[in-house]
Amino acid sequence: MSTSSSGQLIGVGTGPGDPELLTVKAVKTLERADVVAYFAKQGKNGNGRTIVGDLLKADVTLLPLYYPVTTEIDKCAPDYVSQITAFYDASAEMVAAHLREGKTVAVLSEGDPLFYGSYMHLHVRLADRFPTEVIPGVTAMSGCWSLAGLPMVQGDDVLSVLPGTMAEAELARRLGDTQAAVIMKVGRNLPKIRRALDAAGRLNEAIYVERGTMANGTMAPLASRDDAEAPYFSLVLVPGWEGRP
Amino acid sequence: MSTSSSGQLIGVGTGPGDPELLTVKAVKTLERADVVAYFAKQGKNGNGRTIVGDLLKADVTLLPLYYPVTTEIDKCAPDYVSQITAFYDASAEMVAAHLREGKTVAVLSEGDPLFYGSYMHLHVRLADRFPTEVIPGVTAMSGCWSLAGLPMVQGDDVLSVLPGTMAEAELARRLGDTQAAVIMKVGRNLPKIRRALDAAGRLNEAIYVERGTMANGTMAPLASRDDAEAPYFSLVLVPGWEGRP
Ligand SMILES: C[S@@+](CC[C@H](N)C(=O)[O-])C[C@H]1O[C@@H](n2cnc3c(N)ncnc32)[C@H](O)[C@@H]1O
Ligand SMILES: C[S@@+](CC[C@H](N)C(=O)[O-])C[C@H]1O[C@@H](n2cnc3c(N)ncnc32)[C@H](O)[C@@H]1O
Repeated sequence: MSTSSSGQLIGVGTGPGDPELLTVKAVKTLERADVVAYFAKQGKNGNGRTIVGDLLKADVTLLPLYYPVTTEIDKCAPDYVSQITAFYDASAEMVAAHLREGKTVAVLSEGDPLFYGSYMHLHVRLADRFPTEVIPGVTAMSGCWSLAGLPMVQGDDVLSVLPGTMAEAELARRLGDTQAAVIMKVGRNLPKIRRALDAAGRLNEAIYVERGTMANGTMAPLASRDDAEAPYFSLVLVPGWEGRP
Repeated sequence: MSTSSSGQLIGVGTGPGDPELLTVKAVKTLERADVVAYFAKQGKNGNGRTIVGDLLKADVTLLPLYYPVTTEIDKCAPDYVSQITAFYDASAEMVAAHLREGKTVAVLSEGDPLFYGSYMHLHVRLADRFPTEVIPGVTAMSGCWSLAGLPMVQGDDVLSVLPGTMAEAELARRLGDTQAAVIMKVGRNLPKIRRALDAAGRLNEAIYVERGTMANGTMAPLASRDDAEAPYFSLVLVPGWEGRP
């Protein structure tokens, strides 16, 4: 359905937080984009918008896409699912309107766009209707293990990326069946994650990283961190490469 | 052991191949590095060196580290292990000599340095002796799934990164126990990888990507690719997000 006069959708990975971790391609794309769209909580700027700072061109059209619901709601409730689906549908149509006018629309995505990114909800609704490009970004996990200087995986190691939302027994099983692991979405799951790591015999290797590569980023052995709820930007690293010199 | 006059070791992620996928931080670091080290096969430039092109400063010292052995040898043979260990030890000492002179030594690392990168062999030998920084990079897998426009993982998906070198039954088991997977190190393992995907019922979703984000990069459904040995720069993607709209 794309015509020569239609615009281009570009998912732009903005990296883990440090603005210098944008790629050269992302910088060039943001400097020329007609419209810059980004997901954010009501009344907030959104982290992607903060990272890109003043790279954008003077007459850019900003298109903030404000979530209608918070994460406080049970994600399996039919109400949540229908509200959020309607929101993504409406957001995609707002982006599509600009694309039909021939505009280049960059969608900011923290880290890498196709790796748990909200950009994906627009991608699956628009990529078969408009010319689309995805600019990969440095993931949060790469930013965090680089900050920690942690040799993560080498040789024939398996790496498992696990959401901290999963059931405790399942998390423990998977942690016991991998050389290295990254646990995303820590938040209020921290006590559960700690118990699962302990059950799998991996707690003493686990490193907790908060706001990796951002201002005020910190890290600590998970074993020494208290059980208070973790902020949104946090993850847990369990390094592999057991036989390292 | 670091003194105020000692130099700095910097592991620099150069991304998956496209020079525009270097981060701004990597570019700035390469422009000021006194010494640029990189692993390569005898007589070759090494891919990292090719990616960084002419970014380096005019009077930079290039330090190519040539592998003494090829990958043709059985990696578990004692001979291989001792030769390669001696090589990494000697390489680390060559880098250390520059660091002791107060030089900034950037070590090129394709993709992300701490994610299966050869830089790690220097890191574990030097990071506790000299000031060290790691600049994360876009991984090969992010470059490949972005090129393919493949929505990879979302929500509570598990992602398993699996080396194609592992035994067939083990590969099949792990492919049957994950939402999404990336299979690295394809090479001559391609027929085995295809059989393992078939056994796990995931063959029809698998995408093969060769030289992702480099010139002449290609991709195809793995099911339609022949069994000829794959080049070094290739991997297989199995996307998750089963319930996507
Ligand atoms: C919806 S996912 C987005 C992942 C992102 N697209 C990427 O490529 O890494 C959000 C999760 O990423 C992790 N995260 C993102 N940025 C982070 C940072 N700077 N430090 C630590 N964790 C971070 C947290 O675990 C958070 O729950
Ligand atoms: C030693 S690992 C290095 C991984 C790298 N440090 C990273 O962050 O992705 C080498 C493997 O990466 C994969 N690879 C690297 N670059 C690639 C590319 N441009 N396209 C496809 N696969 C690539 C291949 O599977 C290869 O066997």
